[in-house]
Amino acid sequence: MSKIFAFSIRKDEEPYLKEWAAAHPNVTVDYTDQLLTPATAKLAQGADGVVVYQQLDYTSETLQALADQGVTKMSLRNVGVDNIDMAKAKELGFSITNVPVYSPNAIAEHAAIQAARILRQTKRLDAKMARGDLHWAPTIGREVRDQTVGVIGTGHIGRVFMQIMEGFGAKVIAYDVFKNPELAAQGYYVDSLDDLYKQADVVSLHVPAMKSNYHMINSQALAKMKDDAVLVNVSRGPLVDTDAVIQALDNGKLFGFVMDTYEDEVGVFNADWSAKAFPDARLKNLIDRPNVLVTPHTAFYTTHAVRNMVVKAFDNNLALVEGRPAETPVKIE
Amino acid sequence: MSKIFAFSIRKDEEPYLKEWAAAHPNVTVDYTDQLLTPATAKLAQGADGVVVYQQLDYTSETLQALADQGVTKMSLRNVGVDNIDMAKAKELGFSITNVPVYSPNAIAEHAAIQAARILRQTKRLDAKMARGDLHWAPTIGREVRDQTVGVIGTGHIGRVFMQIMEGFGAKVIAYDVFKNPELAAQGYYVDSLDDLYKQADVVSLHVPAMKSNYHMINSQALAKMKDDAVLVNVSRGPLVDTDAVIQALDNGKLFGFVMDTYEDEVGVFNADWSAKAFPDARLKNLIDRPNVLVTPHTAFYTTHAVRNMVVKAFDNNLALVEGRPAETPVKIE
Ligand SMILES: NC(=O)c1ccc[n+]([C@@H]2O[C@H](COP(=O)([O-])OP(=O)(O)OC[C@H]3O[C@@H](n4cnc5c(N)ncnc54)[C@H](O)[C@@H]3O)[C@@H](O)[C@H]2O)c1
Ligand SMILES: NC(=O)c1ccc[n+]([C@@H]2O[C@H](COP(=O)([O-])OP(=O)(O)OC[C@H]3O[C@@H](n4cnc5c(N)ncnc54)[C@H](O)[C@@H]3O)[C@@H](O)[C@H]2O)c1
Repeated sequence: MSKIFAFSIRKDEEPYLKEWAAAHPNVTVDYTDQLLTPATAKLAQGADGVVVYQQLDYTSETLQALADQGVTKMSLRNVGVDNIDMAKAKELGFSITNVPVYSPNAIAEHAAIQAARILRQTKRLDAKMARGDLHWAPTIGREVRDQTVGVIGTGHIGRVFMQIMEGFGAKVIAYDVFKNPELAAQGYYVDSLDDLYKQADVVSLHVPAMKSNYHMINSQALAKMKDDAVLVNVSRGPLVDTDAVIQALDNGKLFGFVMDTYEDEVGVFNADWSAKAFPDARLKNLIDRPNVLVTPHTAFYTTHAVRNMVVKAFDNNLALVEGRPAETPVKIE
Repeated sequence: MSKIFAFSIRKDEEPYLKEWAAAHPNVTVDYTDQLLTPATAKLAQGADGVVVYQQLDYTSETLQALADQGVTKMSLRNVGVDNIDMAKAKELGFSITNVPVYSPNAIAEHAAIQAARILRQTKRLDAKMARGDLHWAPTIGREVRDQTVGVIGTGHIGRVFMQIMEGFGAKVIAYDVFKNPELAAQGYYVDSLDDLYKQADVVSLHVPAMKSNYHMINSQALAKMKDDAVLVNVSRGPLVDTDAVIQALDNGKLFGFVMDTYEDEVGVFNADWSAKAFPDARLKNLIDRPNVLVTPHTAFYTTHAVRNMVVKAFDNNLALVEGRPAETPVKIE
């Protein structure tokens, strides 16, 4: 009988862990809500593999402590592997898997809902309701169907976002360095980012962050956009020059901004500052604006995604444990 | 040269009035931001027709004052004609038009965005951000694509709402007393409201309010719904037994409630209570709940709708003035 031990299981993950365990009666599943550290690694004693997910680094010491328990099969419930000491993992003979795609819809829906909210001025309207001002005017909405939506990056998430926007009746145009043949045949692509900026009322980023596109949305890009454009970044913080966006909000060039990812989010997002000094004045300034919707890298966070993250990680781990090829192995080098 | 005078023109209506005037150089257009009353009627002196829109009653005195200026051609920029003294209008030989359909998308988009927000718990998340709690857990979202959306009423607005929900990837089912043949052929309709309540995760009302459906959403209807259902009413307040909904929110039967129309809205909505005692404790209670989104009958209020209301009212009025049949005359009886 195989045994899999899971670390840092949140309340909202428990039902899916239990669902997986019930579907695999031949596997012993145990778990903790604690993070994996050199000290907690011993909880995995007797396990054949571990399922993990944390912002905390998987250090050389942590990996050694796992290996000391005889555990070298580790399955991440998330995508990112930058916080793993890969040299040490290689030295200890680890096998590692991740979950690269768990729900493109989670992120695409979030982008669509928040973009629509900016157009509809819901934050202003909510604030009016809360203080008892029940006038509808002058808080007027722009209909999604009247917008030209420019999608940068037509991968897993961008494509779902396009479908949602078309459901609203919007006109969708797209740009990608690698054109999807089907979308190309349907005529979605414009020739250049400049063309997209020129035509789009809503500009939404769905590309990975790389050196080559660091601050791709800078003051030059913003200047090329239409007046009253809406900018959506639910992809990666470094894609956007935050200061340039603030300037474009201040001078009225941008109608609004959706920000789920922030170039300085590490150490600030996913923490509670309500009883402490807020650590980032620029971020606070954005949060407080009526035409900006900030969320703390939460676009992925749906029941559908969490279920997939848990179930796929356990599936992967069981494959490692049983010596079968895992669906999404991580290259260790 | 014909002359049309418009009353109570808001700032957001001005651009569309000017657009219409520019497109009709042979018509003199003048306007005021004042409401039409027996006192202000004289502003219409010399006009051949008036364009109007107000909650204030068009009383016998007001109509008489208009007729005294020789004006008996009146075009409403909105739908509702209950506040017109029809007997007097008939006696004075008035011709009246309204704008029955100005933008089904305005209302359908609002319903879709607000329903998605309930599923996504954006009000809770926004409140966390505002107070500096940047944890994403446990504020988890439900994806729209995972929902069965039950649409009651498949008229102008319900049909657009269905398309938007399908763009998200939701499963859509519908109920209507008069089935649309095209939708019927596509298999959208369930046989009864009970069937709809049994299957739907989101129940959205898009029917007119009549005596026969007063409080159609009462405690019995709510009891038939799925646990954690979301109720959406952007149609008419009297369709919903507000006390029963509050009970269903309190006992956790309903996941959330979208309310753009309220059975006691007259005299409360579209007024500013921020410096006065709030007049409706039950409404205040709903506004303050994290899983309820109240808006003050504002679903219609988009640039697209306002443009149509202005342009169609002027088109109608010019037809009356020039003795042509207006597109949407109001029966005076
Ligand atoms: N906010 C969240 O919670 C969250 C969660 C998951 C993923 N994401 C982010 O969403 C983004 C998109 O993810 P995905 O799964 O759709 O990726 P994907 O790899 O499926 O698609 C990315 C697309 O971008 C294109 N691309 C790459 N560089 C480009 C450039 N410079 N200009 C134009 N197109 C370019 C690629 O050709 C590809 O089609 C990524 O940045 C990812 O990190 C955010
Ligand atoms: N919130 C707002 O700002 C706003 C603005 C405009 C309209 N509305 C409201 O939206 C609702 C829908 O408007 P519409 O333009 O789509 O109307 P519509 O007349 O085009 O469609 C209404 C549909 O409901 C059906 N119906 C009537 N009674 C029914 C019942 N008891 N059960 C099931 N179906 C029934 C009809 O057959 C019709 O298909 C109306 O209540 C209207 O007052 C709200």
